[in-house]
Amino acid sequence: MAPLKMEDLSEDRILHLVDQIKDWQVTKLSHRETVHVAGQLMEDIPQCFPTAVPRSRFDQAIKLQTVFNRLYCAVAEDDQWLYNVIRDIIPTDSLAKALWSVHEAVKKDGYVQSISLGLFRSDYMLHLDHDKEMESDDEDELSDASLKQVEMNTFSASGGSHADKVQVMHHYLARTGMYETSGVAFDSTSLATNRNIKSIGSSLALAHETYGHARSKGVKATAVLMIVQPNNFNIADERPIEYELWDRQVPVPTYRLEFGADVLQYTSLGQDRELLFQPPWLESGLEISVVYMRAGYEAHEYDDVGIKARIQLEQSTAIKCPSVLSHITTFKKVQQALSAPGTLEAFLPGHEASMIRETFMPMYLMDESEQGLHARKLACDLVQSMNYILKPSLEGGGHNVYGSDIPPYLSLTPEAQWSSYILMERIHPPLQSNLLMGPAVLDSGETVSELGIFGCCLWQSAKTADAQASEESDHRIQMLSNEVGGWTFKTKFADIDEMSVVKGFGHFDTPLLVDL
Amino acid sequence: MAPLKMEDLSEDRILHLVDQIKDWQVTKLSHRETVHVAGQLMEDIPQCFPTAVPRSRFDQAIKLQTVFNRLYCAVAEDDQWLYNVIRDIIPTDSLAKALWSVHEAVKKDGYVQSISLGLFRSDYMLHLDHDKEMESDDEDELSDASLKQVEMNTFSASGGSHADKVQVMHHYLARTGMYETSGVAFDSTSLATNRNIKSIGSSLALAHETYGHARSKGVKATAVLMIVQPNNFNIADERPIEYELWDRQVPVPTYRLEFGADVLQYTSLGQDRELLFQPPWLESGLEISVVYMRAGYEAHEYDDVGIKARIQLEQSTAIKCPSVLSHITTFKKVQQALSAPGTLEAFLPGHEASMIRETFMPMYLMDESEQGLHARKLACDLVQSMNYILKPSLEGGGHNVYGSDIPPYLSLTPEAQWSSYILMERIHPPLQSNLLMGPAVLDSGETVSELGIFGCCLWQSAKTADAQASEESDHRIQMLSNEVGGWTFKTKFADIDEMSVVKGFGHFDTPLLVDL
Repeated sequence: MAPLKMEDLSEDRILHLVDQIKDWQVTKLSHRETVHVAGQLMEDIPQCFPTAVPRSRFDQAIKLQTVFNRLYCAVAEDDQWLYNVIRDIIPTDSLAKALWSVHEAVKKDGYVQSISLGLFRSDYMLHLDHDKEMESDDEDELSDASLKQVEMNTFSASGGSHADKVQVMHHYLARTGMYETSGVAFDSTSLATNRNIKSIGSSLALAHETYGHARSKGVKATAVLMIVQPNNFNIADERPIEYELWDRQVPVPTYRLEFGADVLQYTSLGQDRELLFQPPWLESGLEISVVYMRAGYEAHEYDDVGIKARIQLEQSTAIKCPSVLSHITTFKKVQQALSAPGTLEAFLPGHEASMIRETFMPMYLMDESEQGLHARKLACDLVQSMNYILKPSLEGGGHNVYGSDIPPYLSLTPEAQWSSYILMERIHPPLQSNLLMGPAVLDSGETVSELGIFGCCLWQSAKTADAQASEESDHRIQMLSNEVGGWTFKTKFADIDEMSVVKGFGHFDTPLLVDL
Repeated sequence: MAPLKMEDLSEDRILHLVDQIKDWQVTKLSHRETVHVAGQLMEDIPQCFPTAVPRSRFDQAIKLQTVFNRLYCAVAEDDQWLYNVIRDIIPTDSLAKALWSVHEAVKKDGYVQSISLGLFRSDYMLHLDHDKEMESDDEDELSDASLKQVEMNTFSASGGSHADKVQVMHHYLARTGMYETSGVAFDSTSLATNRNIKSIGSSLALAHETYGHARSKGVKATAVLMIVQPNNFNIADERPIEYELWDRQVPVPTYRLEFGADVLQYTSLGQDRELLFQPPWLESGLEISVVYMRAGYEAHEYDDVGIKARIQLEQSTAIKCPSVLSHITTFKKVQQALSAPGTLEAFLPGHEASMIRETFMPMYLMDESEQGLHARKLACDLVQSMNYILKPSLEGGGHNVYGSDIPPYLSLTPEAQWSSYILMERIHPPLQSNLLMGPAVLDSGETVSELGIFGCCLWQSAKTADAQASEESDHRIQMLSNEVGGWTFKTKFADIDEMSVVKGFGHFDTPLLVDL
């Protein structure tokens, strides 16, 4: 399959395609307008035409995922290594400070659950390593592009449900012949398929089963507890997972609870630190088997109540998805530290370390080391900064500073805080022309895409596990399950830096796998 | 299973239930707010608590459906009988006039397709035959209630997709324990299940296969054509059927076309009256196998262009769902005529005629016959009219006049037009207390429900068929397929006359089947 050529389609066809998409939105997708609480909804904004991705790069990203899973599980179980990486930012980064304080509080009395669940998402873009002027729709460029990691999300990774729902639409549009051009049939088997909702549901169900029966006296049943944000703009992404769990052949009871005060009000710890859940609308209390965190990723959530709530969850026997230490691995500092020479080899066999390293863009600390001072020089230079992104250790991409914005940004930031950032070389993706639907207008232009791969893994700390020497284990961890969950794929105009779906920039897309 | 007792549920539980429903709406249902064209959308407004229906009455309605299907197929093939029934209203009822003129125009050159598809819906309410004061939540009343037909829809019957989608929600809520009271488990197998979308899709697919290969030279493929209204408020009900057809193991290509000018612009008749479809957004033309009418049920649609469009469709070799004669059977005059002594027996074996007759409420013509004059007297009487509904021969329930509104309404209507109405005795359903969610408020009160049963049937006129004597045939028709499709179930406050979902009165509900 070759990339779609938009110019081969008549205006009639494009207008008809837009009508098809709008009706699909009304009947099958979630919409901002329908959110019932004041606020916004992360909606499924679909891309009009599936964007081409070389099949070899897509397959590479899939193949890497179980290695990335294992790497991050191992990192999460090495609190000394993690401490060394984030130590410098604990005084200045309030999220790092809060999370480390939670870890220390729980460690004092000892963790009572050695098993953790990870629902990770590794994000990639295609990258052209040369400086030549880029032209759109150039198949040569696509075939030259390598796969580079944007970031690794180990906490509250979202978008899985949206991606699932939107790809169903692209498959439908393909079947109806909307992507045929000049009588050439569109091979819809070239559209990637997805199963995030099922995979994430299966992983939570496995963790739930692994937890076993209720241990607390007088409690009959166990359940998964999804910890969510108030006025939740993510319900359209979270709810399908909950529905999937209830809909399984053996239903997995799943409930939602807002992070913060509600955790302290409606949960308590049993005699052996079981996590008990008793909201007023449930007739009998439940013991929580799995705590699935879809909140607690922003610094402002950790006031005194937030910290107490997180400690209570972490102290419990419930399997955390994920643990606080695993949460900390999502910091950009960790991504940078893993790129330092020799580090990957401490966690992975050599051939795997090389596979992973190939996907890293150059990343620099912004501290006062020799390397850090070099990075500061790059970042403050009006010309050289153009090729970099300044990333704070916060969740998501919304806080990044891009290119020429970096020098003025740093000039307004106290130098004492600079070391909480990392500097990453910009990825230069090949451009593809496409059509993006906004809420009011349809616009065409050069676009770039980001591919996320979900990893689903259940692991046990080797300190407690009967560690058996195998490819799936090292001295830190034993992998109980290690799977690829599915993918997300987002496309935006190339001249916008942020891939934010919430802000309406990013559109959910489906990779059109092309053999080049 | 016994009816739910709302008063057994705590306020916390009810508030939680409402939250659950609102999130389901956002992620799974269609909303008025999301419609993209100016106008409204027929949305899935769900009922909070499933309403009890005696299992025996539900089963009775299911059992009756294939008999009703056969009855209406036979009626549709008897144009002389139909003419006698509607003859009087042709001069005054513009829809009747338009449809009959279409039939006459097509008949002149002869129909070239002897097979028709029916997607019918027979609507019922429960009825208490005695005068005693009704009390809510009275199980005795429910067990005493008989099944009475409100009307038979043989054209553009809607609500199937909405009903399917909302029942999935009720099953989910049941599974999550939201309907448990005082520790008594809710038996979710007592909630009726549904499969309208699949059944309607299968019936259209069967008709499509029955049509066979394209007959027109140079046309390679056949397709189903759904004729729809402009600024369509029914897309959320229609589109799922279209998606289902494309989604079948052997996809059935299905397209939409607006009734009226677009039919004349984008379709044409081939040499042997094949219906050819060539819109500008399709690369190659198609031959239409099945015309699925979801428009053309309102008088204003039949201007000169509308009449020409309908004639073109009816003249073609495409299988019509349904034919213009079958459309005419949906007139209230036909329902009344079938209730006249001896009529059913002319179309059905005796035992089936009795089964059907049991569901009829007394209905009267409003003409100048002896019976008609009696009905006029009842309708004009301020007291006696309370027990009646005045029904014009129009589609849907939105034009009915209820009880005490009848005498003043008739006093403003020229007597010459009275005979286009029928007078039907009101159904007195048992009341059940329930909670209804409006767009802004939650309200509780006494409610009544309406059960619709979908019938899916493919038949051939016996004039052309190799008529074989069998239970599924008579001298007029041979049934090629005769199935029950599924159900719709709508609930509204008892003090509102209309069951309109579009106006926000009717809520899609799921029957809770109770054994009394």
